[in-house]
Amino acid sequence: MPRYALRLEYDGAPFVGWQRQDSGLSVQAVIEDAAAPLNDGTPPIATAAGRTDSGVHAEAMVADLLLARDLPPERVRDAINARTVPHPVVALAAARVPPDWSARFACTGRAYRYRILNRPARPALDARRAWHVKRRLDAAAMHEAAQMLLGRHDFSAFRASACQAKDAVRTLDRLDVSRLGEEIAFAVEARSFLHHQVRNLVGTLVEVGHGRRPVTWPRAILDGRDRTRAGQTAPAEGLTFAAARYDPEPEWA
Amino acid sequence: MPRYALRLEYDGAPFVGWQRQDSGLSVQAVIEDAAAPLNDGTPPIATAAGRTDSGVHAEAMVADLLLARDLPPERVRDAINARTVPHPVVALAAARVPPDWSARFACTGRAYRYRILNRPARPALDARRAWHVKRRLDAAAMHEAAQMLLGRHDFSAFRASACQAKDAVRTLDRLDVSRLGEEIAFAVEARSFLHHQVRNLVGTLVEVGHGRRPVTWPRAILDGRDRTRAGQTAPAEGLTFAAARYDPEPEWA
Repeated sequence: MPRYALRLEYDGAPFVGWQRQDSGLSVQAVIEDAAAPLNDGTPPIATAAGRTDSGVHAEAMVADLLLARDLPPERVRDAINARTVPHPVVALAAARVPPDWSARFACTGRAYRYRILNRPARPALDARRAWHVKRRLDAAAMHEAAQMLLGRHDFSAFRASACQAKDAVRTLDRLDVSRLGEEIAFAVEARSFLHHQVRNLVGTLVEVGHGRRPVTWPRAILDGRDRTRAGQTAPAEGLTFAAARYDPEPEWA
Repeated sequence: MPRYALRLEYDGAPFVGWQRQDSGLSVQAVIEDAAAPLNDGTPPIATAAGRTDSGVHAEAMVADLLLARDLPPERVRDAINARTVPHPVVALAAARVPPDWSARFACTGRAYRYRILNRPARPALDARRAWHVKRRLDAAAMHEAAQMLLGRHDFSAFRASACQAKDAVRTLDRLDVSRLGEEIAFAVEARSFLHHQVRNLVGTLVEVGHGRRPVTWPRAILDGRDRTRAGQTAPAEGLTFAAARYDPEPEWA
């Protein structure tokens, strides 16, 4: 049986998250059910590079699955897309990968974007696609504070209490904060992340952006390793899974 | 009674269009009803620079209304936004304008954007926000064809049969077509437009983009002044009202 990688785009708003749950519709269930006709009618198990939470979006999530049918990747892509309607989940591309390949374990880097809409009026065009913060934030101060968090650290202070990772040591490769008009964008990259790590980092940096805390405060929180001292968990709706990196990259079609 | 201008952002998907209609909820009704408490409980009449169709979005529509209450513009903006919930319509800014000012008649220029998502997979993140065209389009050919349509012409060939304008002579100032990755963007500007003019221009240019017609064809259609010979009316979901220009510009707050 051939294994395929899928590059997925989805709007997280209507889903309980990536992972199958009894409480509602998941992205995983939509993909697995759409792929069933390519697998003798049985939904295959799809594994993703990141198990996004409810409300979190993806512009390029990578997942893999084994299929009974041996088809050109573009046929797999189109067949899945024909069956994910009307849900906002599509396969942008598909690739044949080695039988033992895993979108999760082969991933060498993950990138997220976080968006804040920083203006008096709530979003109309980007409703449920950005965190709305009314008061003007200082993006330069947030960026300065963020740079002190780069590198290999114990990120216990920015980890969800429900996080299942064995340890909290991660290497943060990028955490850029920039303003473009009334939007503030966070670009975050690491080999892997803890549960809620990006949203907790954003929520903590926003305290600096408001001027309520000095630029050295997020680093002090990091060093303290105490989750209860960090800022709020930023809302899911601002977060987008932007990229999963592989070496070699699957041959997308 | 003071007159106010409002700069509005809205997602056109759930509305019957700008204008009040018995058939469903309009943007105009949402704004007028939200402004009623500022007008002794009576919904004021709002007039817009452009009466967008059902499904057409706005990132900066300008409208005006008379209010019984004399309030700072930012109070008007915030009061309206508090009452447009849960509809995807917000006032980005408000301004006090002269009593005889009209968002429609004072407007010296209107700008629209049209977006095509040009890739095999339908949009998930931009569902109902772009026209999905699967087959690869030649954006450079469309741009070349578009330049032959600039200037002052009788645009009868690109006018809706329901168009109520007295004559079809308009001056097209800009019609740029460009590709950025898998998105094709049209930037269109004129002092005023005919009903469906932008969508008919886009639908006609797409025939060139597909290679089904030569780059000289849209100009021949223009010169023929026969609507039945032009391309299809491109879907509303790709169209966004981008700007209304005034001289002087209202003092937005």
